[in-house]
Amino acid sequence: MKLATFTLNKVTQIGIVENSLIFPLNQLTEKIPNNMIELIDNWKSYLQLLSDINISTENAFKLTEVKLNAPVLNPKKIMAHGLNYADHILEMKIEKPKNQIWFSKSINTLTGPYDDIKLSKVSSQNDYEVELVIVIGKKGNYIKTDNALNYVFGFCIGNDVSARDWQMKTSQWTLGKSFDNYGPIGPYITTLDEIENPNNLNIKSYVNGEVRQISNTNQLIFSVPELISYLSQVMTLEPGDIIFTGTPAGVGYSMKPPQFLSNNDKVKCEIEKLGFIENNFKNE
Amino acid sequence: MKLATFTLNKVTQIGIVENSLIFPLNQLTEKIPNNMIELIDNWKSYLQLLSDINISTENAFKLTEVKLNAPVLNPKKIMAHGLNYADHILEMKIEKPKNQIWFSKSINTLTGPYDDIKLSKVSSQNDYEVELVIVIGKKGNYIKTDNALNYVFGFCIGNDVSARDWQMKTSQWTLGKSFDNYGPIGPYITTLDEIENPNNLNIKSYVNGEVRQISNTNQLIFSVPELISYLSQVMTLEPGDIIFTGTPAGVGYSMKPPQFLSNNDKVKCEIEKLGFIENNFKNE
Repeated sequence: MKLATFTLNKVTQIGIVENSLIFPLNQLTEKIPNNMIELIDNWKSYLQLLSDINISTENAFKLTEVKLNAPVLNPKKIMAHGLNYADHILEMKIEKPKNQIWFSKSINTLTGPYDDIKLSKVSSQNDYEVELVIVIGKKGNYIKTDNALNYVFGFCIGNDVSARDWQMKTSQWTLGKSFDNYGPIGPYITTLDEIENPNNLNIKSYVNGEVRQISNTNQLIFSVPELISYLSQVMTLEPGDIIFTGTPAGVGYSMKPPQFLSNNDKVKCEIEKLGFIENNFKNE
Repeated sequence: MKLATFTLNKVTQIGIVENSLIFPLNQLTEKIPNNMIELIDNWKSYLQLLSDINISTENAFKLTEVKLNAPVLNPKKIMAHGLNYADHILEMKIEKPKNQIWFSKSINTLTGPYDDIKLSKVSSQNDYEVELVIVIGKKGNYIKTDNALNYVFGFCIGNDVSARDWQMKTSQWTLGKSFDNYGPIGPYITTLDEIENPNNLNIKSYVNGEVRQISNTNQLIFSVPELISYLSQVMTLEPGDIIFTGTPAGVGYSMKPPQFLSNNDKVKCEIEKLGFIENNFKNE
C-alpha cells in the first residue's frame, strides 16, 4: 500500500495512493485517525478495517489535484547515516567507516515531495543527496538485525539537502544538514510488504534533467537491518521515526569543479518502486 | 514566574511553583491549556488571565508531593552547543572554536529533574555536563543579537549526559549525546523577567556530594544572545525549543584517571536562581 499525507482545500489528511489517484481515508471511514503516526502505531487494526471497506474511484482525487506533504509531518526524530555507499566515501575523500556514523536532521527540515525549496542566503554551497528513507513502524530498542525489518513500516525517498560550507565549518555536520526545508521526503510511504528487498533498489538523482547520482541500495555498506539494529541500541525507535540511510556518489560537492545548487535548479530523486520526488530550488 | 510540568495521580499538568508549593494551572482556570508549548506560545494573553485570578494556597500541593517532569515534554528540537567554556575546552584538549559548534540531542533524551536515569549497558563511559538551558518563547529566524533575549521564554538547568565512548567513536557526537533519558532538564522554567543577566549565573555540578564543576555563565565564549542569533540563521526557532548552552570544566572524562558514572551515583546540577536537578544513575 502507498500512503500519503496531502492537503486539499486547506484540509490536511491521509490518503491511499493507487496509480495516479488518491483515496482520502477520512472519506472511507471516520474510524481512522487523521494522523500518520497514529495510523502507523495501530496499523494492523486499521488495515483490517480498510480491507472491509469498498474503495471506489468516486471518492478519489487525481494526485495532480492535491498538494502532497511530507508523509510524516511531526516525527519525533530524523536520524541520518553519514557515509554509507563506498563510491560516495571515495569521492568525499574519507576513509571507509569502521563504525556507523550518525547525525540528525531537525524536524524543521521536513518539506513536501514537490514543494519549492528556499535556498538559504547564508550558504553558497547547497547540495543534494538522494537517499532511501526508512519509516519506523513500531517501538523498539536493542532490535536484532535478523528481526529489524519487522520494525519497518515502509520506505520513501528523501533528499538530504546539505549546506556544505556549514556542514564543514566545524567538526559537527548537524547545522549544515538542518536548514529549514532542507529535507523533502515522499512522495508517499510504500509499505514494507511491497518491497521485496530494500537492499536491492536502483537509486538516482538528477539536476535539471542531468543524471548526477546512479547506484543501487545493494551498495550500502551498512544494510537497512544493520542501521536499525545499531541505532536502536542508543535510542528507542518509535512509530513514524525517519531514518535517512546515506547517499551514493555524485554529489555536487565532489564534482570538478564543484557544482552547487542555484536559483531555479530542479532536483529529482528517484528510487525503484518508491516513485520520485522533485523540488525546485529558489533563492530566499 | 516558575512553571513546572508535573504528574499527580497519573495526571500530567502544568503548575506555578512558589517557594516549596506548586499551584496547578487547571485548578486556577480552565482557560489555560494543559500543554507547556501552547502556554508559551500564547504567554502574554495567559499572563493577563493569571493576573486576574486569586491564587490561594488551598489549591496548592507541596512540591514533594508531586513528580516533576521535564518542563517541556515534546519540544520540536533540542540543540546543544559543544564547547562553550574556555576551561572545558582546555580539559578536552581541543582548540578554542572559531565558529559555534552545534549538535543535537534527540527528544528521547528528555527526562525529569529528579528521575532515576538508566545507565546504558552498551556504554562504559557515561559522564555528566551541567548546562544552562534556554527555553525559546517565540518563533523567529535571523534574530539579531541585540534582540535575541526577546525570543527567550525562560531558563532551566540541564544535564547533557554523554556516553563518551559513543561520542568519540566517530567524528559525529550525536549518538553519544542521544541515549534514552540522557537529558534531564528542570526543575522548572524560570521566566526571563526573573533573570537579570543569564550571562552571569553561578553554575555547579556534584557527584555524590563532591563538587565537580564550578563556574559562572560569564565564562561562556558565546553568550546566550549570540547562540540564539547564530542558530536562528539555520533553523527557525519555535516556542518550547530547548537549547543546551555548553558545560564548564570538570567533567569525569577529563579527570586523571577519568571517572565515569556508575550504578547508584547521584549527580546534582545547580544554577544560581534556577534551583537544582538531581538524578540517581542506575544500571540498566
